[in-house]
Amino acid sequence: MEFRSIIRIVGMLIGLFSLTMLPPVAIASFYDDGGGRDFLAAFVVTLFIGFILWMPNRHSKRDLKVREGFLIVVLFWATLGSVGAIPFLVSSSIEMNVASSFFESFSGLTTTGATVIEDLESLPKAMLFYRQMLQWFGGMGIIVLAVAVLPMLGIGGMQLYRAETPGPVKDSKMTPRIAETAKALWYVYLCLTVACMMAFWLAGMSLFDALGHSFSTVSIGGFSTYNDSMGHFESDMINFITVLFLIISGVNYALHFSAFSAKKFSFNIYKDDPEVRAFIFIQAFVTAICFIMLTNHNVYETIEHTFSQALFQAVSISTTAGFTTTSFSDWPLFLPVMLILSSFIGGCAGSTGGGLKVIRVLLLNLQGMRELKRLVHPKAVYKIKLGNKALPDRVIEAVWGFFSTYALVFIICMLALLMTGMDEISSFSATVAMLNNLGPGLGQVAVHFNEVGDASKWVMVVAMLFGRLEIFTLLVLFTPVFWKN
Amino acid sequence: MEFRSIIRIVGMLIGLFSLTMLPPVAIASFYDDGGGRDFLAAFVVTLFIGFILWMPNRHSKRDLKVREGFLIVVLFWATLGSVGAIPFLVSSSIEMNVASSFFESFSGLTTTGATVIEDLESLPKAMLFYRQMLQWFGGMGIIVLAVAVLPMLGIGGMQLYRAETPGPVKDSKMTPRIAETAKALWYVYLCLTVACMMAFWLAGMSLFDALGHSFSTVSIGGFSTYNDSMGHFESDMINFITVLFLIISGVNYALHFSAFSAKKFSFNIYKDDPEVRAFIFIQAFVTAICFIMLTNHNVYETIEHTFSQALFQAVSISTTAGFTTTSFSDWPLFLPVMLILSSFIGGCAGSTGGGLKVIRVLLLNLQGMRELKRLVHPKAVYKIKLGNKALPDRVIEAVWGFFSTYALVFIICMLALLMTGMDEISSFSATVAMLNNLGPGLGQVAVHFNEVGDASKWVMVVAMLFGRLEIFTLLVLFTPVFWKN
Ligand SMILES: [K+]
Ligand SMILES: [K+]
Repeated sequence: MEFRSIIRIVGMLIGLFSLTMLPPVAIASFYDDGGGRDFLAAFVVTLFIGFILWMPNRHSKRDLKVREGFLIVVLFWATLGSVGAIPFLVSSSIEMNVASSFFESFSGLTTTGATVIEDLESLPKAMLFYRQMLQWFGGMGIIVLAVAVLPMLGIGGMQLYRAETPGPVKDSKMTPRIAETAKALWYVYLCLTVACMMAFWLAGMSLFDALGHSFSTVSIGGFSTYNDSMGHFESDMINFITVLFLIISGVNYALHFSAFSAKKFSFNIYKDDPEVRAFIFIQAFVTAICFIMLTNHNVYETIEHTFSQALFQAVSISTTAGFTTTSFSDWPLFLPVMLILSSFIGGCAGSTGGGLKVIRVLLLNLQGMRELKRLVHPKAVYKIKLGNKALPDRVIEAVWGFFSTYALVFIICMLALLMTGMDEISSFSATVAMLNNLGPGLGQVAVHFNEVGDASKWVMVVAMLFGRLEIFTLLVLFTPVFWKN
Repeated sequence: MEFRSIIRIVGMLIGLFSLTMLPPVAIASFYDDGGGRDFLAAFVVTLFIGFILWMPNRHSKRDLKVREGFLIVVLFWATLGSVGAIPFLVSSSIEMNVASSFFESFSGLTTTGATVIEDLESLPKAMLFYRQMLQWFGGMGIIVLAVAVLPMLGIGGMQLYRAETPGPVKDSKMTPRIAETAKALWYVYLCLTVACMMAFWLAGMSLFDALGHSFSTVSIGGFSTYNDSMGHFESDMINFITVLFLIISGVNYALHFSAFSAKKFSFNIYKDDPEVRAFIFIQAFVTAICFIMLTNHNVYETIEHTFSQALFQAVSISTTAGFTTTSFSDWPLFLPVMLILSSFIGGCAGSTGGGLKVIRVLLLNLQGMRELKRLVHPKAVYKIKLGNKALPDRVIEAVWGFFSTYALVFIICMLALLMTGMDEISSFSATVAMLNNLGPGLGQVAVHFNEVGDASKWVMVVAMLFGRLEIFTLLVLFTPVFWKN
């Protein structure tokens, strides 16, 4: 392991990250909300941490191997999550202990979007802006991770998306170097954010709200600057814009990149992608179930309002955004549980969404069908195809393995939460919400996470990280074979 | 499909099964409990049903193919479960509607062991005996299914146990014909039942109780003739005997058969089996966690009593027997949830236990480890080995497929129960208890299932059947490819 080179990179990242504390300083002075000094302090501390990590190792510039990629990815999220907590820790406007600060920071950066803050509206604008921005940078990190890094590391079948192997997105021919890929994706991400902000603004939000909510929409993060989340605006237009941009952000960014860079924009890039088709189908299916059940139980007065609520909650939860308009946890019967379970599917691979990812669920489904067919015709040979390409066995095994390990980590996290004293429904739903980077749970954690104990919060921080790093990136660090030369 | 041949076989089975109504008649006249007439009526009805199915098809004796095996297995359990409900339906001693009667019968025959009867002790002896006997016959059916039929059908990697393929039990060289295999296993099963009954009797049970509880112990069924289940006897010796025979019955019966038929009994047959070793380790592990947690929380007064309770509940729940001594659902913190989740592992393949089966969990674990190793060394070739034999990819894929489908069926059953109006914790735990053929759940269904609605009961009947038929046997009937010629 090239530890010194790794520490150098981490130091540089932290130094860069310290710059994210400066926009809140500007916001604070603009709104004169008194939050500026805290962020200035946080900026200095963060920059200093980055400097002392970088300084002694600045000449270690060895080439890094794939194996060291795992460590860098984990350190990237773990250290940025940690220094991201500094503004919450030093803040004079809200009293937050270490566990709460780390929870809020990791929840932002992993785009989970669960909050420990009960009264958001009492916070200074600077702090609100910082939370939204954490999600935006987190979303950017996720896209680079999912499109450029994970396929290289081969996590859970994502070698499928390696540019050199045959696969659904081989046409996009992502440049192999992470830096260039990141730049290209950054451009797409930025354009979508601006479009989303403009739409929110035209629909009646203030510029501040429009910017903040566009950050947490394109990142599928789910943070809001209001206690009632998107419900605050009571606007069907704003709900619809949110749904639209969540669906766009739930699609593989490599596809967006292809669509953007094509000479003539073609909708077929999306239409021909089996994952996008499955993703749209899932959104429609979940919406339809919600709509039918809500109609049968006369939960809302008009048909239009029922549909609007069904669509918003279905898309918000199943893409793992976690925005709410009403308290969907009080919806009748099985709807709350179905909705949070739908977050296991999540967004497409290479999107900012969480969960298992649509492509994996699609493959699991195809594989399950194949097992059934094999029972009837044991001697026939069935290939798993995506589009017209048969998938290699290695990818299929990796997807099965991913799913089983996801289930195991889920059970361990849930038992750990029960152990810290949470009740069954809260533990279950909190684990779903953290591992899938969804945000809100049910029961005690349906709205905020302030009432859970510190031990529970730490468990959840680990669960968010497991979810965001697609389990294996983090898990592999615990194997002896990883550390052996 | 040779439908007439299949119906002939089902008719014969029902005719044979009608004989199980006669021992209760004898019990009724011996104890003079007035329950005899009901069982005589049930006998006549059942025999008649069998006769009208058999009579018109008695000359259809075509050879059946493997594909038809699926249909016969499903029909076997579905029809016997249905006619098994007749004594509950016609009983004059207890008022039970159709849903409750079917639930009780399927719960007995699938060795789930959940009951809708609140006051068992008010029932006539004949009825109590019949319930215990249902479990015993169910257990016998499971062993034959698991040892002789499923490997032939190739369900969820169980082709591993086909006598002609290399595998851990290839030494036992089971005779290929189901009838002979069944006879051999029957002998082992009978011997174990007699040994268990003698042990219970010597430990102080009445002969009636000893016989009844040996039925539900060797079948890992969990029915009791007392409201307090095994807790009624308040005897550490009886608890220990139960634990011993549950562990014996949780082992692959093909191994018992090898051990019985070997010239010189050798313990090595068990010791060398990787599945048995994992099974014993799991029992010890779950017991240890319960013991430590109960000690820390001072739940019981003495260390001995704490250990006895921890051992009994851990083995009873994790082997999927579902006997209780105390209300373990009131144990502190995460113990109730951990215990019912441990039933997902269940017994060894070819045992009377439920759940995923130890061998599959062991393989999933080995496969997960392999995926982690592959991430670090993408070009290395890792084989999955059990003992010294590398397993074919087909088996490994089948195990992954089994697990994913199990998870999917679990979610569907749980949502269906929520839809029928049950609360979250009851739906969750009832699904675990039904699909793993465990018995008791948590919350509303911790002791009996009488308070749940009829719709919920029907869902649970299906879930029990899914669990007992290892998901795929039943699921394959819903695929078009199964019915195509
Ligand atoms: K989220
Ligand atoms: K049972």
